[in-house]
Amino acid sequence: MSEHVEPHFQEELELLKERLLAMGGMAEEQVRAAVAALVDRERDLLAEIEAGDEPINRLQVEIDSLAFRLLALRQPMAVDLRTIVAAIKINSDLERVGDLAVNIAQAAGRYLDHPPVKPLVDLPRMADIAQRMLREALDSYVRRDTDLAQAVLAQDDDLDALKTQVFRELLTYMFQDPGTIAPSLELILVSRHLERIGDHATNIAEDVIFMVSARDVRHALDDDALRRR
Amino acid sequence: MSEHVEPHFQEELELLKERLLAMGGMAEEQVRAAVAALVDRERDLLAEIEAGDEPINRLQVEIDSLAFRLLALRQPMAVDLRTIVAAIKINSDLERVGDLAVNIAQAAGRYLDHPPVKPLVDLPRMADIAQRMLREALDSYVRRDTDLAQAVLAQDDDLDALKTQVFRELLTYMFQDPGTIAPSLELILVSRHLERIGDHATNIAEDVIFMVSARDVRHALDDDALRRR
Repeated sequence: MSEHVEPHFQEELELLKERLLAMGGMAEEQVRAAVAALVDRERDLLAEIEAGDEPINRLQVEIDSLAFRLLALRQPMAVDLRTIVAAIKINSDLERVGDLAVNIAQAAGRYLDHPPVKPLVDLPRMADIAQRMLREALDSYVRRDTDLAQAVLAQDDDLDALKTQVFRELLTYMFQDPGTIAPSLELILVSRHLERIGDHATNIAEDVIFMVSARDVRHALDDDALRRR
Repeated sequence: MSEHVEPHFQEELELLKERLLAMGGMAEEQVRAAVAALVDRERDLLAEIEAGDEPINRLQVEIDSLAFRLLALRQPMAVDLRTIVAAIKINSDLERVGDLAVNIAQAAGRYLDHPPVKPLVDLPRMADIAQRMLREALDSYVRRDTDLAQAVLAQDDDLDALKTQVFRELLTYMFQDPGTIAPSLELILVSRHLERIGDHATNIAEDVIFMVSARDVRHALDDDALRRR
């Protein structure tokens, strides 16, 4: 499967994947909690979500140094190299998902200063899709499953359609009652944050597709390596 | 300065930096053009900006494969390794800046369907700051200049303050005249896109600081390497 079959290397690579999955789980939970606090008008939960970003940031540093160690000490080639570089990219994406969950919590805090504009139905739906995209994107990384990665890309359109729907509906509220302008703007921001979480899941899925199926790239590398010898 | 002093390696590393600078210049120009088209109400220029994303995407693929080749064939250590991994991260950031310039052009297109809400002063100011942050972040990468990278981080507050100002001012317009709601929302979105461009410049500056000054990480690596021998 790869040039590096020594057990240590594969063990460390498994650890790297395991940490990424843990980080993904934490980021996903932060997104869920932030949207739940918004929908249930639970202001008390918001501080918890803001505090919950710190462990994600610590995990980011840990994963980066794991990945750097693997690159520096093991000098992997081809698919292993792409797997580790993908981990570094995915790590950045997950850290930003964590930031976006905090941004959602902050917008929720401002939204809760106002009476509710409307029952929130589409935003939790967007959150569900974004969370599932994130989870499946990480699964596709761990299982090297390009079909699953493709399925993640396909879901981005659903998220986009809901975002447009949220926007149009809130525009109507704002037209009818200027008192809803400020809180509606916060909901629009939340929908954009959720859209960006979907974008990060999309980035991860694209990295997986490159990682698994970039045969051309790898072959170009091999040819190049031969030429230089 | 580094373990790898062979001329080929340093030449290829220079090429990588040169391509990143070229990509940064293109992304910066796209941002400038998108905001200029918005301010000058030049709808004709918008298609050009949308088309201008393609060369940036091509350059992203080229830079990624340059970086992968350096990692795979040269097996760099320590600061060189961090320089190449930083290039891969910066490459992603610049590609997204290109996307954001297109998003600004799209919002501009929708904004131009309406009469002007107000003379646009703060948005071009935000664009100037974001462009400068981007340029200085890339300079700090090429020159390994952590002072300059720190200066980039400091400018993010200016961008944030302007974003808040834009938001508050437009809120007032929307309250006073519901006819300005839809176009004002587009301007708010543009200010968020510019803020995100500043965030990408901030990411780059943080990568530079890690790349140059992560002595602890490198030493931890070296110790580890010794222990394993």
